[in-house]
Amino acid sequence: MSEAQDYKYIGQRTIRPDGFDKVTGRASYGADLSLPGMIWGKTLRSPHAHARITRLDTSKAEAMPGVLAVAVHSDFAAVSDEAIQAGEGSANLIDLASNILAKNKVLYHGHAVAAVAAKTEALAEQALALIEVEYEVLPPVMTALAAMAADAPVLHDDMFTTGLEETPDKASNIANRVEFKIGDVEAGFAEADVIVEGTYKTPTCHQGYIEPHACTVRYDEDGQSMIWCCTQGHFDVRTSTAKLLGMELSKLKVVASEIGGGFGGKTTVYQEPVALILSKKSGRPVKMVMDRDEVQLATGPTSASHNWVKIGARKDGTITAMQGKFIYEAGAFKGSPVMMGCMTAFTPYEVPNLYAEGFDVVVNKPKVAAYRAPGAPQGEFAAEMAVNELAAKLGMDPIELRLKNAAKEGTQTIYGPKFKRVGLVECLEAARDSEHYKAALAENQGRGVASGFWFNVGGQSSVVINMNPDGTGTIVEGSPDIGGSRASMQMMAAEELGIPLEKLKPIVADTEMLAYSQGTGGSRTTFATGMAVIEAAQDVVRQLKERAAALWNVTAEQVDYADGVAYNTAGEDKMTCAEICSKADRTGGQITGRGNINARGAGPSFAVHICDLEVDPETGKTDVIRYTAIQDAGKAIHPSYVEGQLQGGAVQGIGWALNEEYVYSPEGKLENMGFLDYRIPVASDLPMIDTVVIEVPNAFHPFGVRGVGESGIIPPLAAVGTAAANAIGTHVTELPLSPPRVLKLVQEKG
Amino acid sequence: MSEAQDYKYIGQRTIRPDGFDKVTGRASYGADLSLPGMIWGKTLRSPHAHARITRLDTSKAEAMPGVLAVAVHSDFAAVSDEAIQAGEGSANLIDLASNILAKNKVLYHGHAVAAVAAKTEALAEQALALIEVEYEVLPPVMTALAAMAADAPVLHDDMFTTGLEETPDKASNIANRVEFKIGDVEAGFAEADVIVEGTYKTPTCHQGYIEPHACTVRYDEDGQSMIWCCTQGHFDVRTSTAKLLGMELSKLKVVASEIGGGFGGKTTVYQEPVALILSKKSGRPVKMVMDRDEVQLATGPTSASHNWVKIGARKDGTITAMQGKFIYEAGAFKGSPVMMGCMTAFTPYEVPNLYAEGFDVVVNKPKVAAYRAPGAPQGEFAAEMAVNELAAKLGMDPIELRLKNAAKEGTQTIYGPKFKRVGLVECLEAARDSEHYKAALAENQGRGVASGFWFNVGGQSSVVINMNPDGTGTIVEGSPDIGGSRASMQMMAAEELGIPLEKLKPIVADTEMLAYSQGTGGSRTTFATGMAVIEAAQDVVRQLKERAAALWNVTAEQVDYADGVAYNTAGEDKMTCAEICSKADRTGGQITGRGNINARGAGPSFAVHICDLEVDPETGKTDVIRYTAIQDAGKAIHPSYVEGQLQGGAVQGIGWALNEEYVYSPEGKLENMGFLDYRIPVASDLPMIDTVVIEVPNAFHPFGVRGVGESGIIPPLAAVGTAAANAIGTHVTELPLSPPRVLKLVQEKG
Repeated sequence: MSEAQDYKYIGQRTIRPDGFDKVTGRASYGADLSLPGMIWGKTLRSPHAHARITRLDTSKAEAMPGVLAVAVHSDFAAVSDEAIQAGEGSANLIDLASNILAKNKVLYHGHAVAAVAAKTEALAEQALALIEVEYEVLPPVMTALAAMAADAPVLHDDMFTTGLEETPDKASNIANRVEFKIGDVEAGFAEADVIVEGTYKTPTCHQGYIEPHACTVRYDEDGQSMIWCCTQGHFDVRTSTAKLLGMELSKLKVVASEIGGGFGGKTTVYQEPVALILSKKSGRPVKMVMDRDEVQLATGPTSASHNWVKIGARKDGTITAMQGKFIYEAGAFKGSPVMMGCMTAFTPYEVPNLYAEGFDVVVNKPKVAAYRAPGAPQGEFAAEMAVNELAAKLGMDPIELRLKNAAKEGTQTIYGPKFKRVGLVECLEAARDSEHYKAALAENQGRGVASGFWFNVGGQSSVVINMNPDGTGTIVEGSPDIGGSRASMQMMAAEELGIPLEKLKPIVADTEMLAYSQGTGGSRTTFATGMAVIEAAQDVVRQLKERAAALWNVTAEQVDYADGVAYNTAGEDKMTCAEICSKADRTGGQITGRGNINARGAGPSFAVHICDLEVDPETGKTDVIRYTAIQDAGKAIHPSYVEGQLQGGAVQGIGWALNEEYVYSPEGKLENMGFLDYRIPVASDLPMIDTVVIEVPNAFHPFGVRGVGESGIIPPLAAVGTAAANAIGTHVTELPLSPPRVLKLVQEKG
Repeated sequence: MSEAQDYKYIGQRTIRPDGFDKVTGRASYGADLSLPGMIWGKTLRSPHAHARITRLDTSKAEAMPGVLAVAVHSDFAAVSDEAIQAGEGSANLIDLASNILAKNKVLYHGHAVAAVAAKTEALAEQALALIEVEYEVLPPVMTALAAMAADAPVLHDDMFTTGLEETPDKASNIANRVEFKIGDVEAGFAEADVIVEGTYKTPTCHQGYIEPHACTVRYDEDGQSMIWCCTQGHFDVRTSTAKLLGMELSKLKVVASEIGGGFGGKTTVYQEPVALILSKKSGRPVKMVMDRDEVQLATGPTSASHNWVKIGARKDGTITAMQGKFIYEAGAFKGSPVMMGCMTAFTPYEVPNLYAEGFDVVVNKPKVAAYRAPGAPQGEFAAEMAVNELAAKLGMDPIELRLKNAAKEGTQTIYGPKFKRVGLVECLEAARDSEHYKAALAENQGRGVASGFWFNVGGQSSVVINMNPDGTGTIVEGSPDIGGSRASMQMMAAEELGIPLEKLKPIVADTEMLAYSQGTGGSRTTFATGMAVIEAAQDVVRQLKERAAALWNVTAEQVDYADGVAYNTAGEDKMTCAEICSKADRTGGQITGRGNINARGAGPSFAVHICDLEVDPETGKTDVIRYTAIQDAGKAIHPSYVEGQLQGGAVQGIGWALNEEYVYSPEGKLENMGFLDYRIPVASDLPMIDTVVIEVPNAFHPFGVRGVGESGIIPPLAAVGTAAANAIGTHVTELPLSPPRVLKLVQEKG
């Protein structure tokens, strides 16, 4: 499927540089660093979903032998009166501080109230019980619709809806309203022969990374400090923590441990600033490790949503208008990804009339965090379900309907730019032509197909390549390696330098060794950090030519460089990269290449999935029996990693569609903490996920790379939803399709 | 004394960035890293000074429970037959390997024979006793003169003297002969009215760093490995170790711990490659820590020497010729610093006729290592003693004699270049004009004066400066901070960037994060790494201008930058460094400055010391009662550190002159291990060392810096020697002036 290019490493399935460390168990994760004199931090959490804190007395805990420090909300510099008056405590920082340690109110079950550091984990745990908190319990609002009701209890009495024509005079739970449109949807619907509309709901669900949040920190007497933690972006941990504590960036070194999954959920801070306060107060290194319950109670899940979609089309399948109203829960503090929901929901389609309206609504649940293609699965679930309903109503094959309306080069997007070359049509054609799509289905089985779109982002990446005198080198990058960035950086650098892969060691550096680099998220790393690697490698090549020229007494322009060898075009001389490096001392010192970029023009990526599913009508249990994930990778640098991303995205989407949801009691208490009760798919639940990697090069990247991490989680919701609907012969409007809900659908159909 | 310049930070006594870590005990030294699963390595050492190993059986040790690995000489890749045949096992590497673990012969008491790694230090120690070694004991040669005798036992039967007109047909203990000359000494002596000559001897003595050698290493299954150790040059530890083990440089990461002194003695490897072999064999991290006895037995002391010097002068004090024959002990393997002895001995003088001949001789003592101004103190001791004898014979003041003949700008050196501007005359004048030099002496007191010269070196340094979005930054250097390089790098970078000192954090990076940088030695760091810092800072300034220009829509040439602020010369705009950094995302990504250099033209540094000393004629005990160290620093970046260097050099030189020496039994066994028997000066032994810092700028450095670490150890030997001679009223020809030797001189004088 590739537009063939003569690459030496790109496109190979090379050995991952971090493989040995990981299979031997030697790799160090968030909880794996201990320091001399280290003590343990633990967090006291709210038992209530919504309550005013009327009294918080930590004195008994502080007095307990073995307790060395206690932290509460007012310890944050960002929320000091001075900081707020000086305009340094921005709204987001104040929210962040209030989420990490509650201010005057607790806003969800599990909301952190205070933290204790003691000589042992057990002592810290015991000390929590000595913290006296009195609450005035308030009624919780547990869904966006309930939160939007006129008489709903209000979480933040200083929050007024933004994005309206007029600022309201009354605080509410609606944080923000957004709107995107092109054309005139009313006119578009007027042109339509067929109209479908429906309301589609998705649950609160969690990224489900296996590794809980963990950190070890140290705050020294002179204000120098260090955080070791599992994070998708250690530079961003530095920024947030430094701001919350009122520190300069150069005083805080953040080291990214290996990471056991993040999926967007490790792009913010929870314990790190608290641990640093505890360390500052105690004068000791402090370790904090969440347990699984804490992860689920108090770290960011993704938004539950309630979305209405309407689509109009002509009889021939030409879509004339698409409209949606998307309501996303933000959790306890504003900031759901509803804007991205509005921007993506209809983007797989070239339609002249589009309108998307979004509402960001706070509820008494944990503040949402990014989750793989944040905001896209919810909105696209609604849109793709409706498109499949439209196909059924038109009697068209759903892939043919999509092909007829597919976004392509030149398509005007609802959010602004027109597409350059994109690979949706190629993905749809591959789906249509696949053996899977043609295979027969048996009784109680259904098939669903859906597409998915994610922007991918670029952003800031810094890379340094240090060449050694023996011609080997290190690639120093600032993006934590979650999905194999060490391997892909190594491949791209080796390709540019024309030297064997194993000569180059890729390393994720701490925040002191490199200039700022954004975190690993938004499918940006292979794209943007890759571009920085290429820039740094080209910088090395430029210097290799200069150095060879100096040794040959010619100009750099007279030197060619290819496949790791410099050639003197004015003579017969040639020198390998290693030879030039071995003589670098004579030509001005050693060679360092650098690439500091802010990458724009990330390549949009489309995915199309096909799901076959069988329903057990007796129990409502569903089994995915065949699944194919097709996606445009632009260029697959390391195909195994790309396939892994496609498979991982599909599996997370299947989990979201079938089983995952937060179950709350009427009082707003989370009832299904832990992986026994919060059911993510495991290997035995699923068939092998087949993958088809399409390669339609991204014009913005030297090797044509598009991000591949996100799009794959989008189609499963509607592919699974439609497959279940087809298997049962009904309509599906709400996820997850857990056995009770499926059984109910079967019985209703009955 | 400074040629005033308007500096903001240069010349200030700023707070050292590493101060808190060091005074709180938090700083991590060589022995301070432990790793999970780590085991301990211990070394079996030879009880004999010279013996053939006839049998070495490690099987019982290997079989002992708890023992995980044993290492012997043949484990080194560098000495494998293949490597030697391939020309990869260079002579120096073979010697290095044979010094670290003896090959077929042991060549000094304490020479390492094998090493064991076991689960505990005690088990490793016990296992050493299970290694069976049989020796054929050979007669040792313990002095260079004995080693040069025609019938001397030969240490290396494959070593033939180099540097002779004809290669000899017989192996000997003379490794090399060197010769330097200008003019015609015979003609010079013919012109002389007065001639002095004498033979001067110096003992084997040790750098006496407080921290013993220590390392923790890890060799992973995939060949990636790591060394943590105390070293003056971790990049050089990487080079040596990688070569000895046949590894690529990118596979070996070396991290420099804090270092408790090196003084040249930590510029080579002892345990590191052995520990890595043990780790490779055992699959475990390995720690090895020497005890003080091992440090003294088997790490590099400096050469004992036996030097003859002859000087001729006219009656008016004009020196017409200087000649010397310098014989330096190399220890068990070739490579004494005798060449540097020849190059420095006469260099404080502008004399038309000079001749220096040097011999590098192996003896059954530990292989020498660099020690502060390596080779210079011994040769200059001889020359300066003779110059003082000449002054006495001429009836001239020794400073006036020196001033009459002082090296200055334009002086032709014996080793090649002519001096640019140097500060010897200024130092001599400061000495002459000092209150100290005019002060009266009491009975049994004597005064001595001497000068000292050291080249200083430049060499390769790499530096990266990473600017943060808040305008703070990190200075990433590759030179271990021994004498305050973090402070001086911070000052130089702040000066160039025009931003407050505390905004910049200096960091010593590991070998992966930066391109090769030579170690901290030869007084090169403030000079050469400082130049790399300045280059990197200027690179940052260049980019700051470009970024400001981009924001103002002007050209970079239209932007001025001064005192941390960029000015638009085409308008009224200005922006601080921090403001430009905060907008770097919009102008192409973050800013990294780099400086990779190979610095040439280091500035020679001269020192002149005055020593007053009192002899107790009853016991032979000497007390230094007043001491002034005067030295040209070029420009003192951080005066406190410079003064510390002057004081430290003086104290080490005083120790060398008065007390320090290796005492061997007739069988060649070291009899005075440990600081109780090997007596280095402690604070209570000495008066405050007064310092005078002269600043004659070095034309080769932007701030005029000259290295200051070395020259200060040179004058004490002759200053103390002459003071003692004057106090007793005799001649001194041999160091140390320990109580027995002084008592003998007193008694001989009678």
